[in-house]
Amino acid sequence: MLRGSNLPRLADYNQAVVLDLIRRDPGQSRADLQRTSGLASQTISNITRRLIDAEMIREQQPSDSARGRPSIPLVANGNGAFAVGVHVDPARLTIVLLDVAGEVRRGVQLRTPQGSEPGALTSLIAVTTGRLIREAGIDRDRVLGLGIAAPGPLDVHEGVVLAPPQLPHWRDVRLRSDLRDATGMPVLLDKDVTASATAELRTSADSDFLFIYLGSGVGAAVVAGGQVLRGASNNVGEIGDILVDPSAEELGWSGRRGGLAAACVPEALAIQAAQAGLLPLPDLDDYLAIDDACTELSRLASVGDATAADILERAARRVAVGIGVLVNFIDVPRVVLGGPTWNRLSAAFLPVLDDAVRSELIAPRDPFSVEGSVVGEQVAAQGAAELVMDQFLAPRASALVMA
Amino acid sequence: MLRGSNLPRLADYNQAVVLDLIRRDPGQSRADLQRTSGLASQTISNITRRLIDAEMIREQQPSDSARGRPSIPLVANGNGAFAVGVHVDPARLTIVLLDVAGEVRRGVQLRTPQGSEPGALTSLIAVTTGRLIREAGIDRDRVLGLGIAAPGPLDVHEGVVLAPPQLPHWRDVRLRSDLRDATGMPVLLDKDVTASATAELRTSADSDFLFIYLGSGVGAAVVAGGQVLRGASNNVGEIGDILVDPSAEELGWSGRRGGLAAACVPEALAIQAAQAGLLPLPDLDDYLAIDDACTELSRLASVGDATAADILERAARRVAVGIGVLVNFIDVPRVVLGGPTWNRLSAAFLPVLDDAVRSELIAPRDPFSVEGSVVGEQVAAQGAAELVMDQFLAPRASALVMA
Repeated sequence: MLRGSNLPRLADYNQAVVLDLIRRDPGQSRADLQRTSGLASQTISNITRRLIDAEMIREQQPSDSARGRPSIPLVANGNGAFAVGVHVDPARLTIVLLDVAGEVRRGVQLRTPQGSEPGALTSLIAVTTGRLIREAGIDRDRVLGLGIAAPGPLDVHEGVVLAPPQLPHWRDVRLRSDLRDATGMPVLLDKDVTASATAELRTSADSDFLFIYLGSGVGAAVVAGGQVLRGASNNVGEIGDILVDPSAEELGWSGRRGGLAAACVPEALAIQAAQAGLLPLPDLDDYLAIDDACTELSRLASVGDATAADILERAARRVAVGIGVLVNFIDVPRVVLGGPTWNRLSAAFLPVLDDAVRSELIAPRDPFSVEGSVVGEQVAAQGAAELVMDQFLAPRASALVMA
Repeated sequence: MLRGSNLPRLADYNQAVVLDLIRRDPGQSRADLQRTSGLASQTISNITRRLIDAEMIREQQPSDSARGRPSIPLVANGNGAFAVGVHVDPARLTIVLLDVAGEVRRGVQLRTPQGSEPGALTSLIAVTTGRLIREAGIDRDRVLGLGIAAPGPLDVHEGVVLAPPQLPHWRDVRLRSDLRDATGMPVLLDKDVTASATAELRTSADSDFLFIYLGSGVGAAVVAGGQVLRGASNNVGEIGDILVDPSAEELGWSGRRGGLAAACVPEALAIQAAQAGLLPLPDLDDYLAIDDACTELSRLASVGDATAADILERAARRVAVGIGVLVNFIDVPRVVLGGPTWNRLSAAFLPVLDDAVRSELIAPRDPFSVEGSVVGEQVAAQGAAELVMDQFLAPRASALVMA
């Protein structure tokens, strides 16, 4: 699958182990790597030389050492490899170009083409990807592939978006093969929540948390012991139907009355704002119009509109009930919220969530925290690119032979 | 911690790997072990000889082989090591003696001593454990320790039962040190749901499922990729507060109205049966009386009482909503129900659950199944004993050095 002729033989297990250690914990010396990998000194020496020759890692200036020969920190070479990450939310399309050192080189957020045909979407992704790579001035042969984060349920093995509750027009969309054809790159498809949790894990280095994704829909992912739980069918995190308010108002939509989706997704918030006479009801088949209504509701709350603030505070209290269900079940000390809708809700949600979630918890939790993502709005796209890096660069446990 | 003088040095990592492989998949030959462990032929030969000498494994008769030297199947030696498993449910106390080959040698179910002082309970456990070991005629020096499965929340590291919602009399009970003092054995404490899922995993060899525990309380555990998820504070599975019926009746008890505990725990079912005029209301401070009421409700349903059958069918439909929440979130293809209350509910629940849970699912699932535990009523006690075996016999990943 690798196309660059000067890339090292990455199938080599020990080499993948060393590269992975350097990616996960940059700045290790050869002696550090010997300790953390358990490999022999000569092996580390050979592997790091090959990785440097292949421009996958590089040496940094050693820090001053009081005595003896200073040890040389090794870091991933940002120009060694790249991956494209694409997040397809029904309203917002995010595309990033990530380098192997974990830096986002280029990123763009666009409005997602509406309609039931994915042709316009795949063309836009292909054209934009080409433009980002050209603008970054990088070697296209060093782009490993493209990862797509999309709402579930998905068939990850077939690369198909099945039937997302928030995407009634989308049924069995073969997004992976369409994008492979449109870009000529290897493509993988994964869930928005799985990709988001992957990016958060890499950036925050926290090993146990619940990720709550807020986009056009709502979802969740679990990171336990430093591992993102994918679910047996890669469809972890469908939480929209969790009952959070038995006395919730009727919205006249397809979601479950009193459910978590009805509490907080942009469509439900737009309906609630319209029911309160605050905003005109947008066209509910138009995710862009719904997204704009959510933005306007958030703006009104931020400038002191009491009705808007009440709607969002109520939403936060309902979301807290749902988060309580998940924390009680899965037992995590930390909750992280993110996704394309989060930035518009965080100002209203954060002052409410911590106490409101704590009051739902059965087991005593100290420490316990509820926070916004450290990655930012592009968390799912960045995670999709990280998944591509892992696909090509990470050691496979199945290849490990004890000796 | 090991007291037997003739037990092998189990801290030896490779030896622990080999014993673990034989325990998990009995009947492997030395050549099989070489393949599955990656260890050298001579190492396997030395280790298996040591394990045979220590009576931890034994050779079985080889099956007839068409050609060449028949390979000799190796299995754990049931008389090599034992563990005691204790399950403390507020109403039922289960104690088993498990051997290293996975067979329950002795088992007993008693009524749990009521009251707020754990002294009567620890005495009963110590006396009964001593009796089971004597009756089994085994060498007490080969009993590795005693595992307790108890309702959460727990402090597993300190061995303390904190404040279970279904055990208002129990606050900060130091069950582990009390039992260590009473039995003289090494003791570990873990959650009832974690122990149950461990036993189910070992017995069924299924690698991805949700375990729903029904005892005096209700709980859940997750097995993902062959691993039991413990949760960051070892308190996974507090699911009693999940809303399952927004229009549920008021029970006048401490649990959440419309919640999963209110739908299915014996106390809630006893109240529902009393509200329907079916049974007198038991003393709600007496878990034995509550347990008896649940037994009578189940008996009435089984002999055709329509009111009793309606109560249990309604309970099953509510439980299905809760299971749907968990399956949608955690993405498993199989749900297993068990615990001390399950046998009394299964006849009414099983005909309802499969379809009712499926109607809650967002992602398409095929295959998908909802079944009773293959282990039986002693599942949590057996799991507690398995956890003791693992504590002493399983290889520790932290000791692994790649070479």
